[in-house]
Formats: sequence, structure tokens, C-alpha cells
Amino acid sequence: MLILMKADASKGDVEAVEKKIRELGFTPNDIPGATRLAIGITGNQGPVDAGIFTVMAGVADAVPVSKPWKLVSREVKPNDTFVKIGGAQIGGGRFGIIAGPCAVESREQVDEAAVAVKAAGAHFLRGGAFKPRTSPYAFQGMKEEGLKILAEARAKTGLPIVTEVMDTRDVELVGRYADVLQVGARNMQNFSLLEAVGGQPKAVMLKRGLSATINEFLMAAEYILKQGNYNVILCERGIRTFETMTRNTLDLGSIPLIKRLTHLPIIVDPSHGTGDRASVPALARAAVAMGADGLMIEVHPHPDKALSDGPQSLTPEAFAKLMESVRAIAAVVGLGI
Amino acid sequence: MLILMKADASKGDVEAVEKKIRELGFTPNDIPGATRLAIGITGNQGPVDAGIFTVMAGVADAVPVSKPWKLVSREVKPNDTFVKIGGAQIGGGRFGIIAGPCAVESREQVDEAAVAVKAAGAHFLRGGAFKPRTSPYAFQGMKEEGLKILAEARAKTGLPIVTEVMDTRDVELVGRYADVLQVGARNMQNFSLLEAVGGQPKAVMLKRGLSATINEFLMAAEYILKQGNYNVILCERGIRTFETMTRNTLDLGSIPLIKRLTHLPIIVDPSHGTGDRASVPALARAAVAMGADGLMIEVHPHPDKALSDGPQSLTPEAFAKLMESVRAIAAVVGLGI
Amino acid sequence: MLILMKADASKGDVEAVEKKIRELGFTPNDIPGATRLAIGITGNQGPVDAGIFTVMAGVADAVPVSKPWKLVSREVKPNDTFVKIGGAQIGGGRFGIIAGPCAVESREQVDEAAVAVKAAGAHFLRGGAFKPRTSPYAFQGMKEEGLKILAEARAKTGLPIVTEVMDTRDVELVGRYADVLQVGARNMQNFSLLEAVGGQPKAVMLKRGLSATINEFLMAAEYILKQGNYNVILCERGIRTFETMTRNTLDLGSIPLIKRLTHLPIIVDPSHGTGDRASVPALARAAVAMGADGLMIEVHPHPDKALSDGPQSLTPEAFAKLMESVRAIAAVVGLGI
Amino acid sequence: MLILMKADASKGDVEAVEKKIRELGFTPNDIPGATRLAIGITGNQGPVDAGIFTVMAGVADAVPVSKPWKLVSREVKPNDTFVKIGGAQIGGGRFGIIAGPCAVESREQVDEAAVAVKAAGAHFLRGGAFKPRTSPYAFQGMKEEGLKILAEARAKTGLPIVTEVMDTRDVELVGRYADVLQVGARNMQNFSLLEAVGGQPKAVMLKRGLSATINEFLMAAEYILKQGNYNVILCERGIRTFETMTRNTLDLGSIPLIKRLTHLPIIVDPSHGTGDRASVPALARAAVAMGADGLMIEVHPHPDKALSDGPQSLTPEAFAKLMESVRAIAAVVGLGI
Repeated sequence: MLILMKADASKGDVEAVEKKIRELGFTPNDIPGATRLAIGITGNQGPVDAGIFTVMAGVADAVPVSKPWKLVSREVKPNDTFVKIGGAQIGGGRFGIIAGPCAVESREQVDEAAVAVKAAGAHFLRGGAFKPRTSPYAFQGMKEEGLKILAEARAKTGLPIVTEVMDTRDVELVGRYADVLQVGARNMQNFSLLEAVGGQPKAVMLKRGLSATINEFLMAAEYILKQGNYNVILCERGIRTFETMTRNTLDLGSIPLIKRLTHLPIIVDPSHGTGDRASVPALARAAVAMGADGLMIEVHPHPDKALSDGPQSLTPEAFAKLMESVRAIAAVVGLGI
Repeated sequence: MLILMKADASKGDVEAVEKKIRELGFTPNDIPGATRLAIGITGNQGPVDAGIFTVMAGVADAVPVSKPWKLVSREVKPNDTFVKIGGAQIGGGRFGIIAGPCAVESREQVDEAAVAVKAAGAHFLRGGAFKPRTSPYAFQGMKEEGLKILAEARAKTGLPIVTEVMDTRDVELVGRYADVLQVGARNMQNFSLLEAVGGQPKAVMLKRGLSATINEFLMAAEYILKQGNYNVILCERGIRTFETMTRNTLDLGSIPLIKRLTHLPIIVDPSHGTGDRASVPALARAAVAMGADGLMIEVHPHPDKALSDGPQSLTPEAFAKLMESVRAIAAVVGLGI
Repeated sequence: MLILMKADASKGDVEAVEKKIRELGFTPNDIPGATRLAIGITGNQGPVDAGIFTVMAGVADAVPVSKPWKLVSREVKPNDTFVKIGGAQIGGGRFGIIAGPCAVESREQVDEAAVAVKAAGAHFLRGGAFKPRTSPYAFQGMKEEGLKILAEARAKTGLPIVTEVMDTRDVELVGRYADVLQVGARNMQNFSLLEAVGGQPKAVMLKRGLSATINEFLMAAEYILKQGNYNVILCERGIRTFETMTRNTLDLGSIPLIKRLTHLPIIVDPSHGTGDRASVPALARAAVAMGADGLMIEVHPHPDKALSDGPQSLTPEAFAKLMESVRAIAAVVGLGI
Repeated sequence: MLILMKADASKGDVEAVEKKIRELGFTPNDIPGATRLAIGITGNQGPVDAGIFTVMAGVADAVPVSKPWKLVSREVKPNDTFVKIGGAQIGGGRFGIIAGPCAVESREQVDEAAVAVKAAGAHFLRGGAFKPRTSPYAFQGMKEEGLKILAEARAKTGLPIVTEVMDTRDVELVGRYADVLQVGARNMQNFSLLEAVGGQPKAVMLKRGLSATINEFLMAAEYILKQGNYNVILCERGIRTFETMTRNTLDLGSIPLIKRLTHLPIIVDPSHGTGDRASVPALARAAVAMGADGLMIEVHPHPDKALSDGPQSLTPEAFAKLMESVRAIAAVVGLGI
């Protein structure tokens, strides 16, 4: 934290700021300038609240100069974290593919999807049993019945299950069936839910919120790690911008930065990122070419009959074709798959 | 819903679309154009999923032509809803003021704030006992102890209490102490929480999410009303944009539109809206001048010692001064206060 | 500028940074911390390019700690600038009203509008002769013929003229007819145009760009002042956000901040800000209540026949009615009008 | 255009709307619904202004149902447009690389960069002689002297020149030296400049504006084509969002959509897109993997001495290394390079 004093700050103003810094247990360091004084704060272990100083007389601004996250930071843990369930792995040099329908709709639908995505080379099966929907009148998911269907598909194909949990009261239930608990974009700052999934043993996939900064995204992951659960996968799924011709704006430019900042793996969801199946393959190829740690792709055996997100779901045939180019690009950039 | 066929759509494509519309129980209406056909859908009661049609052969686009909300709509209930607790009222021609500290920090702090804001003319007392914080290392609130302190301040001043609930598991607990349960911006699409507050008897204040559209904001309120709770106050508290010199971008331009669309009252939170106490009075005056239904303002007896949001909190003196101009403008625009 | 060294920066890295600072003619100031060093730069008169340092070995970050603008800054000129043309004034405690049609369409239309807005109490007449349009197929304005019509309306009513210039080649021409040259939102960073209007004697109204930060807005004004023209009015007209139910998001929260940062007057354009005449009066009242320096409002004698922006134009009757409440609120907040 | 009547619209309201449609030379088509009437407009060649109808009594909304662009549309010209200058080509199955420094700073700098990027496989040389800068105090470019330096580098290396023009008065001058005239992001809706570059013979590279929608981007290109110049290259260079840890948000998700909508080639500028050289190679690989038509990359022989954009410039060595993986991925996705 650097405190910038106003040009007309009095000696008393400066002394008050320095006294406050010492009261907090830190050390003030004067940096005299041509027209005004800056005071550097040292000795703090975590972030200092800028507001403590900006309200004081004679203070022009308080500028944070260090990053707020700890456990997720690559400075703390330089080597890659990876999540490994059976033979399926995301991160640590392995490009992991999660595929399946947006929502669990029936046993037949999930079975057909699971068999197809496994045959094409996917490593995990996705499917929503609890569905967050903008409208209370839209299909809300099959709930526990859906979880059972997913578990049966796992028994049949061996694919670990990724599925969403929306309510702290359901964490135990979903954890009984799932291999990876998904926290959705709308719940990225549902801090109670973050703590709940942080306090249970299953891996967690955390999706970036629609308007979450990279900083907030990493801080949300920090909530989970702080409870002791380090098996966390980040997922970029598009942010909200002024552009409306795509469903969201997939922020691929954040991926290389996030990989430098944190040791956690980060995957890309091009299905929600664009909302249009015609654009999904191009963005999936981009994700592997740039060195993301994996993909989550919606695949539905009959997209035109899907109860949710049909327009952005690939057919099994399109998914299988996409997997071929993903594998070819992975080979070029040196990623295992 | 209007289905736009491509210029080169075949007769079979058109028939397939019309068959699908009939299967859904609706009626297709042909609108022949110079170069291509549009098909209007009639007979539906609620929104039709565009995705059902956009994936069909020969379809260029599917355009929704009606609004998706129902219970919150002013078309359904033309006259203003208002929330009245004892003598305090928001909406229905009465401009209601909620004031108090961001977080409950101590009995003394809340008491001092409560007495001061009541003296200045506030109608409700606010204070957070459960605090959503970006960092897991920041102060998280006094929880039930904080709720008790708020209840004591109500006993002393008569001001009804507005306080946040963040977790479905805490709804019953918070409801035991609070008069109005606040759902915060980060939880605006925590649909489990919306249903939980919709299913209990206390009034609810719903804050607009940082990147929530007006449509999503109203749909979130619809979740609450659908559970039977019509005592809902909306709160505009700033959205997230590219501008970083203000904490948020207070979307005052949405207020007149929201008032035309819904019968629910809508208030303005200029404290979070700008994040800077120097800007709060100007925006508070703007809110009353434009005909919002109330204000929520952070007031702290000692902002420089606040554990949360000190820089945006008014002193009791500044709040009292602001109330004078708010009353004067309310008189000009014909609002009771 | 504060240079933050990495925890593992070598002695040589630090020396190289300090050598570079001295080469630029500035002074390095060491601020030793618990785990790493920060180096403050003093002696610079203007902004230092962070990029010079962030590319150097051992440097973690370079943080600017002073504001980049000069001539527009209230620190440089503490008292309000105002623009006064004849009896019409904007700024310096006077609330100025600019009104008239979006585009000049005919002599009759402009005359009718000018007479009506003057009667209602407007101080300036607006009207576009050069129209920036998203589509090349939309009406592009009457050009010089339109400027002549505006000049005739001025002769008749005495109202000074505000009109847009879009091309450096037209600055001289527009300046011959107009009293205030408007630089539109899309040209806010057309730096050639800013320099051109800065180098001529007529006053300038600079509209904020759709995605311009407050900093960029003030820097654009700085371009004009740097050429010697201090008669500049800023205009907030809405920024682009994710919300689509309003045409733009009027950033009223920026107004108090801008008034603290700069001595230039700032007015509000609620017509473009919302794009909907039903919302214009509420936002106009908000602008005067919060202490902006004026309004620019689109008024058309026959909005349903307007060639541009009809839906956001007030009728003369609605404008006259609005002016009554604007005057009443101006009296409350102590603004002359 | 579809006109939606209110549920309580009178017979007279409907007749007035239909009369207005006929007055405009179009045909109204009634679409009776369960509770209200919609009226489809047919017979129009271009977009109809929604505002004409939304202001009429009884009208609830006016929904545009066709796309507004013409000449740039892939419906009009299904096969790819490509820009070919000598042996260098962008579009039509060839992946073209533009590289060089942000700004022309000296003969030596440009020569060194030109030789290096050619050796690594670039097809075009970039360099700014006219520089748009946020601050009037920043380096503004070498102007004509810079253009001469670029022309000399072309003479030496054979690389065609891409350089920016900012002012209509400079179009002729820049066109004398450049092979491709760049219209920068800040000038994307400088319609006078678009018309000027559309009326001269050299190719044009149009960068997407910071807050331009895809629709506005294509409409800006339409302005150029309308003047007769079809040699237009689009360039995605990042949009402005709430995220500040990257310079811009590179909207790669728009690329597949833009390629479906228009026949014009579209390239990607990852240097401005992220503002950080550490992220440039990953995004460049993404661009080729997804099937963009080329790249524009900033390369500077000595980035730490660059007068502009040093932090986002690659060294010649890093660029050469990047080109290897770009070529390998191009081979996988079947692009010539």
C-alpha cells in the first residue's frame, strides 16, 4: 500500500497517517517528491484496507501494490496443480475433456451421450441435475433422480461425473454421486457455497462469474482452498459485455495470465462462451492451441429436442470430428490428451 | 415468437417448422415477404424457447416478441405495490429512507448510528450481520450476535431492520430478527435463496446484480413472488462497467423504465453505487428528483474506523444535512416522506 | 510512478532500474519492504511510461501514482470555468439548457422548434447539420444548408447555436455558423478533430465517448485546451454497457467526481442517455438535482415525423412542462437558471 | 420489421400504423395473436426505422427482423474476399502475417525490425507514422518522415506496408506511401475518414472499435465498400470490458460468427488484445487454430527502448519462435501460410 498525500497536506496530516500505520502494526516509509509526499507501508502480510487512509485529512489516494490472493498463487506453489480421477486428468500437462448434455433429461439421453463422448475420447461426463434458470417457469432439472442417472452412466462407461450444485443444503447429496462438484457462474461469489464445497472431499470445478474480474475469480477459488480442498479446476466460460450477437464474450486472453498467476488448472467452456454450436469447434481448437488445461463441451444426442441449451450443443458426430483436430493441435503444442 | 426462414429455405423446411409449432400446441401464422418467409407463433401463454427453432433446417433466426415476466409485471397489476412496516413505508407515493452502517461492528456503533439516523428522519435501520466479502481474509460479520444488536436498536428506536441473508440455511434465523431480508447483488441469481426468501413471511429487498440486465433483475423478483411473497423492494445499486474511477456505475436511467415495467417499488443505493461519500449526496438528490421510491444510505458514526466500506459511509452530520435537501426535492416532485 | 521489484530481484536488477530512472532525469527513492523493494520515482513533471520499467528484469509492476491531466485539472485552476455567449451561460453556478431537434430537417421544423424551446426557457438551440449515422444508408444531414437554417433561427430567436462537426475539413465552415461546435461521442478520440477545434475561436462541447473512461474524457478535453481554447463544455451522454433495454447507460455517478477533478462545466444529455422520451424528464430532473451545469435535450415539433431519434425527442409541450420542474429543483439546490 | 400492437390497441391505432406503413411504400401483414396483433412489414429493401412506429399510439414494440448490412454480407457474395499485394495475401485460405513496431522511431529501428520479421516469415510490415495517443503530451509519431522510412524498408525487403491514417486531410499523403491504410479502433466510426479511404485505391485495414458491436463493425466496413473500395481487411483487436488485468478483452468468439456473416477477411491483433507480450504467443496460436485469416503482431528490436507499446512488443527472437508453432498449427487446420 502506498499512501499519496495531497500537495497541501499539513505536517499534522502526515503524522496522523504515520501514527495510524504504526497502530496497525506496520511501518511507514517516507518517499518525498517534488510537490508532495508518498508514504509506503511495509510489514503487512496481507492486503491493507485502502479506505482506512483515504478518509483521512490530507490523503489524496491509497494505492494497493501487492496481490491479495495467497493459497492459489503460483508464487506460493510454483508447480502445476492437477486434478486426477482414475485415469482422467486435467492440468499438469494433460489436456482433459469434459463432455455431455447441458441437463440430464432421461436415462436414455444420458446413456446415449455418455457412450458417444467416451467413444470420441472424452475423459469426463457432464450433465446438470440441478439447473439454474433465469426464469422460474423454465425446466429446473431432475434433481436426485438426475444424479442417479449420471451415476449409472459412470458405472457403464467409467467416466467420472461433473455436475452442478447450487445450494449449500445439497452439497452432501451431490457429493454422494458426483466426482467433481461444479459451482456455476451465477454462484461464483456465493461465499457460503464456496466454503461448503471447500469443506468436503470431492474435487470442485469453479466457473468464472459473468462479471467477475480475474482477481475476484482467484479470490473465489481462495475461499475453497482455505477450507482445505486443493482439488480445484477453474473454468473460463465467457463474460458479459456489450456484445449481444454472441451469448457471452469468451475471455481467452485471460487464460495465459491466469496460468502465470495461479497453479490451478484452467479449462474453457466454448459452449456457453458463444452459445452457438457453429462457433464451438473453432473456439475449442483455440483453447488447446493456446495451452489451456482442458475443455468442457455440451454434447446432446438430439440437440433439437434438448430441454436446455440445444442451440449450443454439438451432435455426437460433430464432437467426434472436433476431437480429431483437438488431438492434432495438442500434439503440436506438446499437451498430453 | 417470430421464426424467420432463410431466403433459400425449402418447402419441406417450412413445413417442418410449422409441424413443430403445432406439436407444441401453438398456431403458426405465415407472413410472406419479398425475399423470405416469416412465421409468427400465436397461442402460447409464456415464452417459447428460441433454440427449438434455430437449430432447424432453413431457419435464419427466432425472435422473441413478448416479455417473459408475469407476476411482477405492471400489466398484471397496474397499481403500485408498497411495503409498509409500522409507520415506515416504501412505494405507493411514499419515499422511504433506509440508513445505517455497512456492517454491525458493536452494540455502541449500531446504537449511535440508529439514534442519529432516526433523528435525521430515516425510516429503516440497515446493518449487515452476514457480510459477503471478496476475500476470505476480510471481516465476515458478527452473524447472530449482530442480529441481536440490530433487534435491540429496533427496540430502542422503533426503526424496522433491513439486513442481509446469504445462505438458505440462515433464512429462518435472519427472519427471526429482521423486518426486511436483503438479498445482495452477488446472490441475485442464487435461485435457491430467492425461493427460500419467497417462502417466508418477511419482506424482501432484492439488490440488482453487478451484471444483471433489467430483465434478469425482474425475473429474479419473479422467483420470489412465485413463492407467494409479494412484499418485495427492488434496489438499484450500480452495475459493473469499464469505468473504474467510480466503484460501480449507478444505473439511474433504468429507474423510470423499471417503474413502467413493474408495480414493485425500487429504491437507490448511492453508497455502493459510487463508493465515495463525496458523491453520495448528489446521487441521493438525483434519486428523489427522478421519482425513485426510496434510498438506502450507509451512515457510520466514525467512518474512519469502519471495518467495511468506510470511504462510502456518511457521517451522521452529513446524513442529516442531506436529508434536508431530500425533503425539499420530495416536496417539489410530490413525494411523501 | 512506483516500481515494485520482484522478491527475487537481484542487486543488478535494482541498479539497472535506478540507472534508467536517472537517465530519464528523475530521482529513484528506495522503499525497502519485508520481502521486496519498491522504488519511488520523483522529479517528473508529467506521466512516466510504465512500460519502460515493466519490461526490465526483476520488475514485478510499475504503478502510476499521479493523475495525467494538467490544463483541465481543478488543482491547476480551482474556480469553475463557464461558457457565456450573450446572455446564455453554462457553468459557474448557472444551469444552462440546450434544446432542439436531433437533426435539421427543414426551415419550418427548426423555426418551430426554436420558437418553442425559447418560449419554454431554453438558452441554446441545438440541431445537427452533419449527422454521424451507423448506416451509410441513413439520412446524413443537410450539411451547409442546415447550418444556414440554424443561423436564421438564431437571428429570429437570439438563441446561440450548438451543432456538430465531424471532419477536420469542415471545422472552418461549421465555425462560421455555430456558436458552440459539438464533438460527438464517436469522435471523442479523433485527436485531429480535437486539435482542430482547439485551434479555432468558437466554444466547444465535447461529448463523452461510448466507452471512454473519465480519464480519457478529460484527456480528450486536454487536447482542446492545449491548443489554446479554454471554452470547453463537457457532456455526459451515456456509456455502453451490457444493458440493452435502455439505449445507453447514463453515468450520472461520474458527474460529482468530474466536477471535483476539473474546472470545466459538465452537462447531461438524457435524450441519448436513455433513448426513450418517457424516461427523459426523470433524468433531466436528476441532473439538476445533483448539480450538473446544464442539460441538452432533444425537442422536435413532430417526433413521429423525425428523420432521426424521434423516439427520444420530447414534444414542445412536454419540454415546457419539464422546464417547470427543472426550475423548481434548481431553486432548491441553489442554481441560477 | 415486426410491429407489436398493445393488447388494448384500438382499431384506429391499427389502421394508423398500417396507413403509415403504406405511406412508406411498404406492405403491412396482419398476424393475429391470442391477445394481441402483430403487423409484419414487407417490401422494404433496407432497414426501417423502428422509432417511426414506437411513438405511435397502441404500439408496444417494433422489432427489426433483418440484418442491416448489404455489400459486406456473405449472402450477397458467398465466396471469400482476399487482399493480395504482390506475393502477400490475407484471406481466401491464406493466413497472412503483419509484423513490425508499434511506432516508427528511426530508420535503424524500422530496418532492423523489417529484416527480422521478413526472415521469420512475416508477409507485411507494420509501423505507425501517425500515432493516436490518449495524452497530447505523448509521442505523436514521425509523420511523413516516418512514412518515408517505411517506404525505404519496403524497397529493401519487399514487404508491403501497413500504416495508420487518422485524418481525412492525410489520406492522400499516407496513400502515396502505404500499401494498406489502417483505420484505428478510435476512428472506426469516424465516418468521414471511412468515406475517404473508401474513395481511394489502396487496401484498407479496419480495426474494431473498443466498444463496437459486430453489427457496427460491419456497418463501418459497409461505409468503405459503398465508396467502391472492396479491398478491406477487418481486424479484431480487443474490446473494452470491466476486466483491467488485460489491456483489452480479445473477442476471439466473434471471429467464427464474423466469418459466417461477411466475405471479408478478418485478422487478429493479439498485441493490443492483451497488452502483454507474455500472452501474445498463446493468443496468436489460438487465432490460427480457429481459422482467422491472419495476425498483426508488434515486434520491436529493442522493446525496452520503444517509445510506444514496449510491454506488448515481441523481440525478433520470440517472434521467430512463435512463427514456427503458427506454421505447424496452420498445417493442421489446412491454412496456407
